[in-house]
Amino acid sequence: MAQTNPTTMNPMPMGPFKITVYDQEHFQGRRMEFTAACQNIMECGMDNIRSVKVECGAWVGYEHTSFCGQQFVLERGEYPRWDSWSGSNAYHIERMMSFRPICSAVRIPYPQNHKDCRIILFERENFIGRQFEICDDYPSLQAMGWCNNEIGSMQVQSGAWVCYQYPGYRGYQYIMECDRHGGEYKHYREFGSHSQTCQIQSIRRIQQ
Amino acid sequence: MAQTNPTTMNPMPMGPFKITVYDQEHFQGRRMEFTAACQNIMECGMDNIRSVKVECGAWVGYEHTSFCGQQFVLERGEYPRWDSWSGSNAYHIERMMSFRPICSAVRIPYPQNHKDCRIILFERENFIGRQFEICDDYPSLQAMGWCNNEIGSMQVQSGAWVCYQYPGYRGYQYIMECDRHGGEYKHYREFGSHSQTCQIQSIRRIQQ
Repeated sequence: MAQTNPTTMNPMPMGPFKITVYDQEHFQGRRMEFTAACQNIMECGMDNIRSVKVECGAWVGYEHTSFCGQQFVLERGEYPRWDSWSGSNAYHIERMMSFRPICSAVRIPYPQNHKDCRIILFERENFIGRQFEICDDYPSLQAMGWCNNEIGSMQVQSGAWVCYQYPGYRGYQYIMECDRHGGEYKHYREFGSHSQTCQIQSIRRIQQ
Repeated sequence: MAQTNPTTMNPMPMGPFKITVYDQEHFQGRRMEFTAACQNIMECGMDNIRSVKVECGAWVGYEHTSFCGQQFVLERGEYPRWDSWSGSNAYHIERMMSFRPICSAVRIPYPQNHKDCRIILFERENFIGRQFEICDDYPSLQAMGWCNNEIGSMQVQSGAWVCYQYPGYRGYQYIMECDRHGGEYKHYREFGSHSQTCQIQSIRRIQQ
């Protein structure tokens, strides 16, 4: 981002990770700040999370406690209700019960170190079949030459990525990190506990 | 995308734009192919569009006839039902009644000519206030230093862009093109006929 007016910049946040969650929509109700993972929001006295402000870092939210169920990538900004962080799925269960920082997300600012993010896509499970190595964002994998609407397995070599079921960063989200699973996701069931198919049609880096 | 196996590539499509629409979900029912704009799908004998395959080019679909209402960017790939192209909005009206190619979308392949896409964001309407000039994709404008969760006006200098209400390319979509409105969007009411606020938290280039 070319900065054309220095007064536009916000001061740097104090720490590397900060998220504020609310138990009502539109940043109302009980409010709690976190700088590290929360495995079960109910243990903090909230029945659910209904709005979120991410002030620093990139996070992933989960439908269930203990980092299970649907995944929601949360980057800096304001999420006033459930549908602002969910994908555009038919499966609408308005819950976010746990969340954690994405530590391997690369740092901005742009123009960024594209080489710091690298993932290899494989046509079939267990890292076999046709493959592509990518270092950039792809709103349509098919437009870039990928053979179909599925990915069989993936190796994250560096950085953190989010994969999506549909083109244009829509549908179910799957967070893939170099520092989890040893960066290896050898079957679609390892993409996430909510994964039901290997359908992935867009993919992008996660930055913070 | 680094091509590690030439057999992965599909042959180049025949023309610059091709979309196939179906009047039932999951690519069932009546089917029609288009290589140019369609102002009213009912005039082609369909009551609605319920699934889509984009085979070539980037397109924009609209909720209503005559290119009005909610906008949906459609890049190459498969969209089996309404929720695969919509944003994650509370306002769910399952209609796509018109669509057209996005002619100013830049051509792939990557690594792309970032300089072919340029847009200037302004804090306030009528191109005043703080401003940023951008040439890349921004899943969180706030993470990049933008002052708040709104944009007052925009000038598209080249290429085509899609702006989103929420971070991470979620929520309402607004297609901005250098060859429409003279590239000038001086008030949020010009962002799209469905625009109700100037809230925009992520933005990316449209490529084909």
